[in-house]
Amino acid sequence: MTTPLHPDLAALIAATGPADPAAMRSARERQAQLTKPTGALGDLEELAVRLAGVFRTEKPWPRGVAVLVAAGDHGVAAGGVSAYPPEVTPAMVANFLADTDAGPGGAAVNAIARTVGARVYVMDAGVNAELPGHPRLVRAAVRRGTRDLRREPAMTREETEALILAGAALARRATQEGADLLVPGEMGIGNTTPAAALTARLLDLDPVEVTGRGTGVDDETLARKVGAVREALGRNGSDPSDPLGVLADLGGYEIAAMLGMMLQAAASRRAVILDGFVEGSAALVGVALAPHLRDFLFAAGECAEIGHAAQLAHLGLKPMFRLGLRLGEGTGGVLAAPLLLSAAATLREMRTFAEAGVPGGV
Amino acid sequence: MTTPLHPDLAALIAATGPADPAAMRSARERQAQLTKPTGALGDLEELAVRLAGVFRTEKPWPRGVAVLVAAGDHGVAAGGVSAYPPEVTPAMVANFLADTDAGPGGAAVNAIARTVGARVYVMDAGVNAELPGHPRLVRAAVRRGTRDLRREPAMTREETEALILAGAALARRATQEGADLLVPGEMGIGNTTPAAALTARLLDLDPVEVTGRGTGVDDETLARKVGAVREALGRNGSDPSDPLGVLADLGGYEIAAMLGMMLQAAASRRAVILDGFVEGSAALVGVALAPHLRDFLFAAGECAEIGHAAQLAHLGLKPMFRLGLRLGEGTGGVLAAPLLLSAAATLREMRTFAEAGVPGGV
Repeated sequence: MTTPLHPDLAALIAATGPADPAAMRSARERQAQLTKPTGALGDLEELAVRLAGVFRTEKPWPRGVAVLVAAGDHGVAAGGVSAYPPEVTPAMVANFLADTDAGPGGAAVNAIARTVGARVYVMDAGVNAELPGHPRLVRAAVRRGTRDLRREPAMTREETEALILAGAALARRATQEGADLLVPGEMGIGNTTPAAALTARLLDLDPVEVTGRGTGVDDETLARKVGAVREALGRNGSDPSDPLGVLADLGGYEIAAMLGMMLQAAASRRAVILDGFVEGSAALVGVALAPHLRDFLFAAGECAEIGHAAQLAHLGLKPMFRLGLRLGEGTGGVLAAPLLLSAAATLREMRTFAEAGVPGGV
Repeated sequence: MTTPLHPDLAALIAATGPADPAAMRSARERQAQLTKPTGALGDLEELAVRLAGVFRTEKPWPRGVAVLVAAGDHGVAAGGVSAYPPEVTPAMVANFLADTDAGPGGAAVNAIARTVGARVYVMDAGVNAELPGHPRLVRAAVRRGTRDLRREPAMTREETEALILAGAALARRATQEGADLLVPGEMGIGNTTPAAALTARLLDLDPVEVTGRGTGVDDETLARKVGAVREALGRNGSDPSDPLGVLADLGGYEIAAMLGMMLQAAASRRAVILDGFVEGSAALVGVALAPHLRDFLFAAGECAEIGHAAQLAHLGLKPMFRLGLRLGEGTGGVLAAPLLLSAAATLREMRTFAEAGVPGGV
């Protein structure tokens, strides 16, 4: 017997419809008339058409970009699966919020977001520390870090649903504050381990195929990490036919929050830019719950983490670049935003052969 | 006996020094202290260090972005080497300058430049038409289109030098008007044929290895195009040891203008973002004249044109993305600008482990 979903989550999933085929058709027809050789904008052309499907218009005009960084800690970090101590998670949350000469935030995601004009939201999704109050910190934690997934389910279903709904609420706020492109981002020492476990279970892959070096672990730590994923899967605590159960069993609070952001974005017909491997693991749960979510996802880059390629293949997404990023925080997603905005702009602002009086239109 | 260079061109070449090794060293040291795992920003890290070398500071702060689109026609276009008639060149110049609802310009480069905040400059480098006056059109043409490179040198040395200096003058103006990242762009029906001829001669490659489908020619046209390149090279009108002679023999006016932009950018210590294959052919001439120019070049994407990979390998540049673009106009270069600006921002605006009090610094 499957446990019934929280009614708000069920409503979110029910609200996630497909991309608009009529708008995509119109966009394709318009694309063929624009003052450029057919196909000359390469992958930007399909990206633009997909945006037309998301925004239900042949001339998509996404407004702002927001990156929503959810931070959480992981019981498994005690098992030595990261190159960094868990204390880095709260310290980085403080760094995301710090006042600096350049503006708010001293982390990579802040610097990149300032450059491309994206707004940064920071959420405590379950950090294992007493975080000092800050007007820009969204508090959503229900527990200070997950349980150790090697030994027991990382989260309860109720906790999982609470974080999904908190992520959805933050996405709703970002949208109300002007964002049409949403980048879920994360910070959580140890979180490529739950991401690998989720990916292995949902895609039925062996731990060695999806467990990578994260922020840069050595061979010994990598072996421990693979072992941790194997142990977690060996508990047989969840079944792929129950995606929410898998997420509770093997996931993390920030992963649940990012899933909520994605579902809300799709329900509100906004585009989601997927950053890396941890975001990808949330997306795998998402498409298992709501297959149409896929239509709203755009892959930024293929990150350095092994297993990301398998996620993207399953999601049917082609990454926009391959810069070897392996930082998280949503950095890759923010970097990709101008490419996606540009794709939309070509469809919206280029003149047709007829309008421009250029010979050679089809 | 080699013809002496125009003194202004000689001065430009002499002014092109190397990237600043001390600034790059400081940038690398700073990079290692920033609040992220070493190497986690992937290729952005080396791009940021290279920008430090260009701008002579460990905290590079490039201001504006400008795309400088030079348009020119080609005698060889009469030989049926393009999918489009030569009349498209002046029509597209008008399109670059047109007033539209979205702002100035109805071409792809305009739409993308508006999105990323880049300024667009348009130059008549040698279009085969009487172009109507326009306040934003920079007139630098000395002839309406090149001669047919299959039969004779495409340009004289004097014409070539005149266009290089015109390109340099426009780059100087763009820099004075706030640009620190310069994107040379081009429009010229038939211009992948001279670009292929230049690449074949300068890299000593066979025409089939560097002659591609341009804006999308069919097999028959491609064969004609390869034949045209072979004919041009077969005249033995120039020698690789005389790069300016090669450019005059096989090039185009807009290619000469883009070379001038690149040399001026390097002499003024500004960064150049290289778009596609035609830009790459100008860069090959550039590094042959002034080897340090390479330090100022940043490759946007690997474009769909065959031969582009060989150019990038020779220049020692790794592209930022591979979106299958094959449009020209500088579109790829403008798309890459936010990535480069972001790379600089991480180096400049991120806090160090010590500044942020984050554990785990080296």
